[in-house]
Amino acid sequence: MTPLRDQLTRATFSVREISEQAASIEDIVRLDIGQPDFSTPPEAVRAAQEAIKDGEVPYTALWGIEELREAVAGFESHKAGPSPDEVMVTTGGTGALFTAFEAITEPGEGILCNDPCWPPYGMVSAAATVRKDQVAFFDDDGVAVDRVEAAVQDDTRALVINSPENPTGRVYSREDIEDLAGIAERQDLWLIADEVYDRLTYGCDHVSVAEVAPERTLTVNSTSKNFAMTGWRLGWLIAPEEIRQQAGKANRGSTACPSFPAQHAALGALEGAQDYPTTMRADYAERVAVATDLLRDAGIEFVEPEGAIYLFPDVGQDSWELCRRLNSEGGVSLVPGTPSGEDSSTNVRLCFGSASEDELREGIRRLVDAL
Amino acid sequence: MTPLRDQLTRATFSVREISEQAASIEDIVRLDIGQPDFSTPPEAVRAAQEAIKDGEVPYTALWGIEELREAVAGFESHKAGPSPDEVMVTTGGTGALFTAFEAITEPGEGILCNDPCWPPYGMVSAAATVRKDQVAFFDDDGVAVDRVEAAVQDDTRALVINSPENPTGRVYSREDIEDLAGIAERQDLWLIADEVYDRLTYGCDHVSVAEVAPERTLTVNSTSKNFAMTGWRLGWLIAPEEIRQQAGKANRGSTACPSFPAQHAALGALEGAQDYPTTMRADYAERVAVATDLLRDAGIEFVEPEGAIYLFPDVGQDSWELCRRLNSEGGVSLVPGTPSGEDSSTNVRLCFGSASEDELREGIRRLVDAL
Repeated sequence: MTPLRDQLTRATFSVREISEQAASIEDIVRLDIGQPDFSTPPEAVRAAQEAIKDGEVPYTALWGIEELREAVAGFESHKAGPSPDEVMVTTGGTGALFTAFEAITEPGEGILCNDPCWPPYGMVSAAATVRKDQVAFFDDDGVAVDRVEAAVQDDTRALVINSPENPTGRVYSREDIEDLAGIAERQDLWLIADEVYDRLTYGCDHVSVAEVAPERTLTVNSTSKNFAMTGWRLGWLIAPEEIRQQAGKANRGSTACPSFPAQHAALGALEGAQDYPTTMRADYAERVAVATDLLRDAGIEFVEPEGAIYLFPDVGQDSWELCRRLNSEGGVSLVPGTPSGEDSSTNVRLCFGSASEDELREGIRRLVDAL
Repeated sequence: MTPLRDQLTRATFSVREISEQAASIEDIVRLDIGQPDFSTPPEAVRAAQEAIKDGEVPYTALWGIEELREAVAGFESHKAGPSPDEVMVTTGGTGALFTAFEAITEPGEGILCNDPCWPPYGMVSAAATVRKDQVAFFDDDGVAVDRVEAAVQDDTRALVINSPENPTGRVYSREDIEDLAGIAERQDLWLIADEVYDRLTYGCDHVSVAEVAPERTLTVNSTSKNFAMTGWRLGWLIAPEEIRQQAGKANRGSTACPSFPAQHAALGALEGAQDYPTTMRADYAERVAVATDLLRDAGIEFVEPEGAIYLFPDVGQDSWELCRRLNSEGGVSLVPGTPSGEDSSTNVRLCFGSASEDELREGIRRLVDAL
C-alpha cells in the first residue's frame, strides 16, 4: 500500500453513496447517518448569537480563544488534568485527528487502527499523507497483545484508540487500554485517543486513555456528538507542547483558525449545558434497549453496545449488496461494514442516534424482513 | 529543500510573533494584521442567526449547501461562468488552497509562487506535503517570462497567481496573466488563482485568471476580505470535476465539511449584501491616497497599490530588526518583508485594512520618525 496521494485517489465516499441514495427515497427509515437527532443546546445557540450580533467576527488565535481552551481543560480535567495551554481548538474532531496525524509522522509512515474502525480514518490519513493500517485489536479474551504487537511496523507511529468505538459501540476497559499502552511503551508509539463519544456510554464508565498513559496520549474530542453540534465543526486536540506546535502548523496551513461563531457556541455548551450529554444518554440508552431486544428476538448476531450511537450486527451476507438492496427495496438505510475493515464484510452499521423509538422498531422490522 | 514534514517543522508563525508582541503594547498603532476593520454585513449575521435559531445545525454536504454553491457560481460568473457543480465550499480561502495543493500533486512535488508572496503559502504547502518554490515573476517591463519558465522544475505542478497580491498590492494585468498562462500551457501546469481580494481594487479592473485560461485554472476565493468575514472561515474552490473530487477528499479528511452557520452567513452576504465590497473599496481607496501621499512626502520607496489592503514599502534596512524596534519603541506595528521572500528583506508590510485615516497618519508618522 502506497502512502502517496494514490491513497487519496483510491479513497471513496462510501458511506455518503448510501446516504445520498437514501436521501432521495420516500418513507425510508434512515439508520445510516452518524448524526444525533438532538438539537444544539439552546445555551450554545444563544452564546453564538450574542457573539456575532454586532458583526464583529475576527480571526481568533490559532489555538482557539482562551476562555474556550479553559472550558475544554475543565471538561477534560479527569483526563490527566490538561492545562489550557495543551489544548488546540480544531475544525471538529476530524481537524484534531488530521493535525495530530501530521504532527507525529513523516509522510508515508503509519498509524495502526482497530479492525473494524471508523472508515474516514482512511481519508484523514490520506489527507495527512499517512498510511492507515488495521489489525483486529481484540479476541474473545480482550486485547490480542501478540497480534497487535506483530502488526506494529518499523515506521508505525501511533495506535488509534477510539472509545466508545464507531462502528462497534465498544467501550475499552481499563485493562484493554493498559494492554495497548503497554505495546505503545515497548514500541515507542503515541496513543491517539479518539474519545468523541466519551459522554455517551450505557451501563459502563468511560476510561480515558490519558488517565492510563498520560505521557503518550494525544486526546481528540469534539462537541459534535457529546453536545449534538455536528454542523458547527468544533473539536480539540490535547497534546504536549512540542506536538501541539507542529499540529498547530498543520491547523494553520489547512484552515487558518477555527470558526469564531462555532467557538462561542462550544463555550456556551461547555459552560452552560453540562447536563446535556446526560439527558441524551438516557434517551439513547432506551433506544439501545429497544434495538437490542428486537435484534435478539430475530436471532441476529451482534455485540451489545456500551457506548456511541451504533450497533454493528453481523447479518451473514455481503453488506454492500444488502445495503444497496435495503435502500432500493427494503425501506431502511444502513451502512455496509466493509469499509470498516476486511473482517466486517457481513456486518452492517445501524445508527440509533437520529431515529425515534418508533422509527427504530420499523427500521429493524424492515431489516429483519429483508433477511 | 526537503518536501517532507521538515518543512512543517521549519515553518514559523512569523507574522504572529509580531502581532502577539504588539497586542500587549499600549497605544501602539496596529498596521500589522491583515484584517478589515469593517464588520460582517448585517445581512450575513441575520442569515446565520436565522439558520441556527432552532438549534438544527447538521453536517452539510461536503461540497457545501446547494444554495450557497449557486450563489458562489453567480458571484464568480464573470470567471468563465462556473457551474455550481464546480464549486466546493471550504474552510476559508486557506482550506481551498490546501485542498487544491493536495489535489494536483504527489507529495513532495512543487508549486511556484511569486517572490514576494503571502508567507502562509509556505505553511499551506507544508500541511499539504508540497514544496513551495518562489521566483520573482516580474521585472520592470512585466512578467519575466524566461526567468519564470527557467524556475519551473520537472515536478512543478502549478503557478500560484495571487491578484490582487498580498503583500504588494499588485493587480495582475491581462497581459501579465496571458504571459503566465503561456508558461503554464507550455509546461503543462495548473494556474491556482488566489483572488480573495478581487473586489478590492483601486483605479483598475480585476482580471480573473479563469477568464484568460479557463481550462487550466483553479480559482480560490472567500468571504473573508471581500465581505469582511475573516472569523467565519468560509471560502471556496472552483475546479473541474476530477480535481474537485480529489480536493473533496482532502477537505473531508481535514474538516469533514464546512461549518453550517458560516455557510448560511456567506449565503446571506452573497445574496443580500452585493454592494458591501464597493462600500469598503471606496473607503480603502481614501486610505490608499492618504498613505501614499505621506510615504511619498517622506521619500520612502514603494509601489502604488492597485488592490488588496497593503503597502509594501522598501525601508532600506533589515525589516525584522526594524519591525521589532518599531514594536518595542516606535509605537507602530508592521510586518517584516523577509518571510515574503528573499528579495524583500528590507520591505515592510503595512496593512491599511484595519486603521482609520487618523491611525494611518499617526502610524506612518511614527514609521518615518523611526527611519
